[in-house]
Amino acid sequence: MTNFRKESDTMGTLDVAADRYWGAQTERSIHNFPIGRDTFVWGRPIIRALGILKKGAAQANADLGELPRDVADLIVQAADEVIAGKLDDHFPLVVFQTGSGTQSNMNANEVISNRAIEIAGGEMGSKKPVHPNDHVNRGQSSNDTFPTAMHIAVVLELSERLYGSVGKLRDTLDAKAREHAGLVKVGRTHLQDATPITLGQEIGGWVAQLDYALAEVRHAGEGLLDLAIGGTAVGTGLNAHPQFGDLAAQKYSEETGFKFRSAENKFAALSAHDALVQTSAALRTLAGALMKMANDVRWLASGPRNGIGEIIIPENEPGSSIMPGKVNPTQSEAMTMVATRVFGNDATVAFAGSQGNFQLNVFKPVMVHAVLESIRLISDACLAFNDNCAVGIEPNLERIEHNLSINLMQVTALNKHIGYDKAAAIAKKAHKEGSSLKDAALSLGYVTEEQFAEWVVPLDMTHS
Amino acid sequence: MTNFRKESDTMGTLDVAADRYWGAQTERSIHNFPIGRDTFVWGRPIIRALGILKKGAAQANADLGELPRDVADLIVQAADEVIAGKLDDHFPLVVFQTGSGTQSNMNANEVISNRAIEIAGGEMGSKKPVHPNDHVNRGQSSNDTFPTAMHIAVVLELSERLYGSVGKLRDTLDAKAREHAGLVKVGRTHLQDATPITLGQEIGGWVAQLDYALAEVRHAGEGLLDLAIGGTAVGTGLNAHPQFGDLAAQKYSEETGFKFRSAENKFAALSAHDALVQTSAALRTLAGALMKMANDVRWLASGPRNGIGEIIIPENEPGSSIMPGKVNPTQSEAMTMVATRVFGNDATVAFAGSQGNFQLNVFKPVMVHAVLESIRLISDACLAFNDNCAVGIEPNLERIEHNLSINLMQVTALNKHIGYDKAAAIAKKAHKEGSSLKDAALSLGYVTEEQFAEWVVPLDMTHS
Amino acid sequence: MTNFRKESDTMGTLDVAADRYWGAQTERSIHNFPIGRDTFVWGRPIIRALGILKKGAAQANADLGELPRDVADLIVQAADEVIAGKLDDHFPLVVFQTGSGTQSNMNANEVISNRAIEIAGGEMGSKKPVHPNDHVNRGQSSNDTFPTAMHIAVVLELSERLYGSVGKLRDTLDAKAREHAGLVKVGRTHLQDATPITLGQEIGGWVAQLDYALAEVRHAGEGLLDLAIGGTAVGTGLNAHPQFGDLAAQKYSEETGFKFRSAENKFAALSAHDALVQTSAALRTLAGALMKMANDVRWLASGPRNGIGEIIIPENEPGSSIMPGKVNPTQSEAMTMVATRVFGNDATVAFAGSQGNFQLNVFKPVMVHAVLESIRLISDACLAFNDNCAVGIEPNLERIEHNLSINLMQVTALNKHIGYDKAAAIAKKAHKEGSSLKDAALSLGYVTEEQFAEWVVPLDMTHS
Amino acid sequence: MTNFRKESDTMGTLDVAADRYWGAQTERSIHNFPIGRDTFVWGRPIIRALGILKKGAAQANADLGELPRDVADLIVQAADEVIAGKLDDHFPLVVFQTGSGTQSNMNANEVISNRAIEIAGGEMGSKKPVHPNDHVNRGQSSNDTFPTAMHIAVVLELSERLYGSVGKLRDTLDAKAREHAGLVKVGRTHLQDATPITLGQEIGGWVAQLDYALAEVRHAGEGLLDLAIGGTAVGTGLNAHPQFGDLAAQKYSEETGFKFRSAENKFAALSAHDALVQTSAALRTLAGALMKMANDVRWLASGPRNGIGEIIIPENEPGSSIMPGKVNPTQSEAMTMVATRVFGNDATVAFAGSQGNFQLNVFKPVMVHAVLESIRLISDACLAFNDNCAVGIEPNLERIEHNLSINLMQVTALNKHIGYDKAAAIAKKAHKEGSSLKDAALSLGYVTEEQFAEWVVPLDMTHS
Repeated sequence: MTNFRKESDTMGTLDVAADRYWGAQTERSIHNFPIGRDTFVWGRPIIRALGILKKGAAQANADLGELPRDVADLIVQAADEVIAGKLDDHFPLVVFQTGSGTQSNMNANEVISNRAIEIAGGEMGSKKPVHPNDHVNRGQSSNDTFPTAMHIAVVLELSERLYGSVGKLRDTLDAKAREHAGLVKVGRTHLQDATPITLGQEIGGWVAQLDYALAEVRHAGEGLLDLAIGGTAVGTGLNAHPQFGDLAAQKYSEETGFKFRSAENKFAALSAHDALVQTSAALRTLAGALMKMANDVRWLASGPRNGIGEIIIPENEPGSSIMPGKVNPTQSEAMTMVATRVFGNDATVAFAGSQGNFQLNVFKPVMVHAVLESIRLISDACLAFNDNCAVGIEPNLERIEHNLSINLMQVTALNKHIGYDKAAAIAKKAHKEGSSLKDAALSLGYVTEEQFAEWVVPLDMTHS
Repeated sequence: MTNFRKESDTMGTLDVAADRYWGAQTERSIHNFPIGRDTFVWGRPIIRALGILKKGAAQANADLGELPRDVADLIVQAADEVIAGKLDDHFPLVVFQTGSGTQSNMNANEVISNRAIEIAGGEMGSKKPVHPNDHVNRGQSSNDTFPTAMHIAVVLELSERLYGSVGKLRDTLDAKAREHAGLVKVGRTHLQDATPITLGQEIGGWVAQLDYALAEVRHAGEGLLDLAIGGTAVGTGLNAHPQFGDLAAQKYSEETGFKFRSAENKFAALSAHDALVQTSAALRTLAGALMKMANDVRWLASGPRNGIGEIIIPENEPGSSIMPGKVNPTQSEAMTMVATRVFGNDATVAFAGSQGNFQLNVFKPVMVHAVLESIRLISDACLAFNDNCAVGIEPNLERIEHNLSINLMQVTALNKHIGYDKAAAIAKKAHKEGSSLKDAALSLGYVTEEQFAEWVVPLDMTHS
Repeated sequence: MTNFRKESDTMGTLDVAADRYWGAQTERSIHNFPIGRDTFVWGRPIIRALGILKKGAAQANADLGELPRDVADLIVQAADEVIAGKLDDHFPLVVFQTGSGTQSNMNANEVISNRAIEIAGGEMGSKKPVHPNDHVNRGQSSNDTFPTAMHIAVVLELSERLYGSVGKLRDTLDAKAREHAGLVKVGRTHLQDATPITLGQEIGGWVAQLDYALAEVRHAGEGLLDLAIGGTAVGTGLNAHPQFGDLAAQKYSEETGFKFRSAENKFAALSAHDALVQTSAALRTLAGALMKMANDVRWLASGPRNGIGEIIIPENEPGSSIMPGKVNPTQSEAMTMVATRVFGNDATVAFAGSQGNFQLNVFKPVMVHAVLESIRLISDACLAFNDNCAVGIEPNLERIEHNLSINLMQVTALNKHIGYDKAAAIAKKAHKEGSSLKDAALSLGYVTEEQFAEWVVPLDMTHS
Repeated sequence: MTNFRKESDTMGTLDVAADRYWGAQTERSIHNFPIGRDTFVWGRPIIRALGILKKGAAQANADLGELPRDVADLIVQAADEVIAGKLDDHFPLVVFQTGSGTQSNMNANEVISNRAIEIAGGEMGSKKPVHPNDHVNRGQSSNDTFPTAMHIAVVLELSERLYGSVGKLRDTLDAKAREHAGLVKVGRTHLQDATPITLGQEIGGWVAQLDYALAEVRHAGEGLLDLAIGGTAVGTGLNAHPQFGDLAAQKYSEETGFKFRSAENKFAALSAHDALVQTSAALRTLAGALMKMANDVRWLASGPRNGIGEIIIPENEPGSSIMPGKVNPTQSEAMTMVATRVFGNDATVAFAGSQGNFQLNVFKPVMVHAVLESIRLISDACLAFNDNCAVGIEPNLERIEHNLSINLMQVTALNKHIGYDKAAAIAKKAHKEGSSLKDAALSLGYVTEEQFAEWVVPLDMTHS
């Protein structure tokens, strides 16, 4: 049998399970927003960020004389447990709630208040000696705390999850590129045979895309260091100590190692989340780059006999429930599916980001959720792709050499010696007759055998 | 200590926890695709659909002499447990896997095989007397089963979840529209005051949008009755009995009550999922309609003193952690956030739907997941909005009457009596002088007092 | 030197070039909205629809006694010239204007008024005997006329442009499918070799997608037959004769041959454009189908030597400015670019469609423009693709036969004879050793030579 | 009667109108790609960029000894005419062509070749003394020239069009913000009355968003300084002098004043256009910021009597064709429509950007077109909004003061004096009884009259 205690807010009193730290407003939200409960409960990144938020706020308030030091210490102690993940079960709310994240802010206030009360030996629900609003939420409003937690959460996830995961894949590919820097193969443009490149150059193109996209994510992420904290309800900072925003941001920096700042313009910080939109967009660019890479991998590995087949990828599972012996590019498929999901998340974020009114954008939870999901999916997919595919990519030397040997586009090397029109005639003749370039060139009399041997050297053509 | 048993597939043998029914391929997938594990494990709709799929397939195969009746009966018995949700813990895979859903198809094959073996008193992992491929997957391929399960899952979720939830909100709003059919208020176009309407007409516009959007979802959903089953690996139906597709579809119809058919063109059914794209698009239209409604509700309820304030919505929670006494349109906010999410999901679905190659589209899992998520979110949000907002919407009669009394746009009623130009002059004069329409009209001498009283009657202007 | 005449509206008087029929409001709009002038001036479809709109309105008003017959006749005469395209130069406005399309509605009113006055021998700008508001706009508002014109324009463009163009391509492909119904080739799933299909089946899959998408466009287009006309400013029909909407819709039906109706709920018809959103979505589905087809074509035609090369497409232009002799799948590229544009247009339409407030959606012009652009681009691209690519697609028989002969996936035909596991072993052996399936099968002793010959027959495997 | 001359390419000879400078490949493209001809012909930005491209290439080639100086001089002379816009009529091609922009690159080659021939007194079509491929396209491929032209065009349009236009609006708003820095008014969150802000703070929030978005566009634009030039067909630089890329980029820098560079990784520069995707995304963020601003403006100006009405915007045109005297926020409507279009364009760009294969992305034309369109529309809309709306925005002092005087949310100022719970009780009492905050506060006995007067001071609450 569940035991209950009474919890109250400005609307009245209600029952909360005795073993839960949350209070009345969290309880109301559970009942009012049963939306997507299976999968849309906040996870670690937001809960942890709320803990960091409340801890630093209490410290800043204490330093500024806005909170008694002992009350602040209790808050810090409880908030540390939130940060550490010990109280995750006490954060039951879902993404689809008030658009300012008010209930999740109150969830943090209530849980920290009650846990602090418990530590102090008080009675949970009594709001003494630690009041959820007057103490834990001191100098704050959902309108500035929740976007602050959003930024902290995303900054940490980027740093602790994304950069490493994508970087690992990038480094694997970079090593492959260096390993095969001299392996000449057919290039392809318009899906058509083109002049030679090296496998290293081909893979290196993917690496360059990842480098660019990662740099853009990092750049966008810097915009997230500007925090709404200090703006309180509408951006004016009403009820907060004038130095609270700056000092709280400093506390967050100390806690996390990132250079957080109180945003210069708090009105924009509450009513828009453009740095989050930009971060989402950069993640989309990264997803696009990963899609291109994953598509190239599966096409290059296509076959085994009737495709391009120039690389071999690891066999991780039986490919088909009906066609025995089939091995499919499943990691590429997971990666490209992730890319489409990231594109969709970004559409959500940008749409939501455009819908602010006056002093508040009330699409905060859905925005940060989508960005965190994109970070998680890209990170996980990069690790899976790295471990189960990229590290095992090997050239199919036999196929690469054969393909190169029959390629007609080496004719391009002749352009500057005999002109585009004659070179084209050679290629056309070879294509039409199914002959080799050399045979066609000689039979047309445009070059000598010696010239052909000197001028048409695939490796030279790669400028590698 | 976990006990293990040996499970094997064409790639070899590995350990599976003894208390799990799944086999080697599921186990491999767990390790190969640790992507978004927290929130992207398949839920009830897909698992149930896989159960229905395998049950009907076994029945059809037995009827056609392709499976011994006793083997089929065992499969049916195990599949019934899958359908009933008793084996959900044995479906551990996530969305981001092979793009054909192969591992989830095999997960169903393996779980049903092992559970059937257990029922038959055999040894799990022995594949006897019920083989996951040769029996449970008989006449099937992931390429036709997974899209079949996708369609079944979405059809059932639409029917059992969406139509009722949205319909409930629609009916509440319709009742409100009827209740206030004669309540005259200011209309607004371009956010500017316009000629009068009734509150019933205003709400009725939302109802008409919901009716249209629901009809479009139903229409799109009909396209999902065409199933890929019978196409096997590439659409030709290789290895399936020629009547298998039709008969399996008939079994699914009997199981569910919907008129499923084996799709006329199986090649399209495997390589594209356009009916799913269309369903997603119709859900997006529905989300757009809900967004418009929810936005109107919150604007009409804006205030309490400095907004429009013509309706009153229920107070469900304290509105602000800093501004006491504030009541916010939180259900509208949750609804509009859901709308942005549905838009994003739809972007994912359409993008993924365009990326098929040759005989297969390998974005199946991400597509169906996004559609199911949209259905779930819309349904939940409609119920929450209905119960916590719509049922309690009440007109603020005082405000409505006051607003109407000072509105200048009733002047439009004079157009056909005195012409547009004179009517405009009256409105401009009243606006400039802050006077009433009637005073301005009389002072300009364009109408008599009697004429004004006869011609300018707000209720008449609504044609209600 | 330009001559001017005076034109006036409720805001005052200004100069208009003497040789232009438009009046004061159009002139103001030219100056107020210099946005994208190069490419966003309305084209034929909207201008023609405005002509149809005004003609039918005048006829209906005359029938209902709301307009003198002679005035109506003058309007009809001028409107007929608008319909015929004789006055296109007098419609100078761009898409980005008032969101209700007010200026374009007034542009039509003014041009028809002045042209009618000219016909009647009156003085342009005098508004006599045909007043732009009181006569041409009789019983109308921009809020109901512009969405009516939007629907008429799209219905006509779909009918006169899209269905025929896409249908032509569809028929060409269907003929190709029939022609090659018996041509066996390798199927491909996951980009990997799979069991055989016929080229007819492969192409037939594209046809089935086009058939489905076209049917969906037609279905969505039926929703456009519901017109806002009769709703006037806010949906109540104020100032319009009670039968005006129905009768005007009847006139539009007579003029065009489509079964237009006055929408049942005018409030929704003004404040939302969900049928247009649905039409856009169906066009997106069509674009997705075309993208899949065009991608398949270019991959199948890839090579000439190092790709798949199973079909040959026409050479329409030199392929490369640097690589002589290269022939690129340029029609596929144009088509897929069109597809991405249609996707973008659809994003615009859906976003805009969700942004209505109260009694009006003020994103009307941008919505209809995007839909018309999508129709135009798809239509043009289908014709170009048909004429310059589809009609000339030919199988590369030599390559098709060679590919089929080395394909390993025919092993699937053995599943039902020897079981999945043994069949897989055969395929793996052949793959590993580079041998033929038959050699591997025989050497493993799983089948006899006679059995292999009887069981592994590619054409039989296609079930064609 | 049109006169023709013969033009030839590697596919043969055909007729070109004698008064056109273009050659065979351009002529073929006209016939092969009749797609969206009305509105999708390239405009100035791309034509000019092609001129700059070819001029600098000729100079670089001459410096490197790859072209005779006299031939280069002829090319430069003709290219200068292209840059100056004198030959725009000779660029008839549309966006939807080969996805590498090959025909437009050839169009430039042909026009410059023939014009140079004409200048030299030669025979057009003879390719002597200036050959379109061997001279004008020397050391180049469409695959590196077209993306180079894309970057040059976008960099110039951003610089010459966007920054100034958006900056002008930004400066107008900034001046308004400063002007009204001390004007206290009601703040609004969740559309509900909130604590006071100044009008300057409200407008300043928009300015901060524009500043951020512009900075992000500038940042993204820097990525466009990396040019594909020097990569030729596949990225290896085959057939170009090793220093050609760097030297050409230097010439472009000299011509334009921007610091263009030859991209470090040419393989990525040909096969992806991520810097363009990022630029598009930043434009989308800018559009989102403009949408928020424009929405705020129209809501703040809503009324005249039944809306918020706290600002007054200029009357630019009659508002309604049926409701006399109505003035609508038309510039806001045009701006928000532009925003939805920019969002759609961005969806196109990101989709297209993800679709590269191997050494080439063949969605180049559609990508650059969409970005240029977004730049144009945002720029035009900002100028129109600035001139016709922003400069004329004035506060409605009477309404602002009235609204502030009845606002309940000033109660928040009491939180830190009497606690959140008591402050909430005051607000609730006042709301319920329709009384003033002060009356409610005093009657509850929570504060004295002196305390209320000292603590509740709206201007102080703004911290301005």
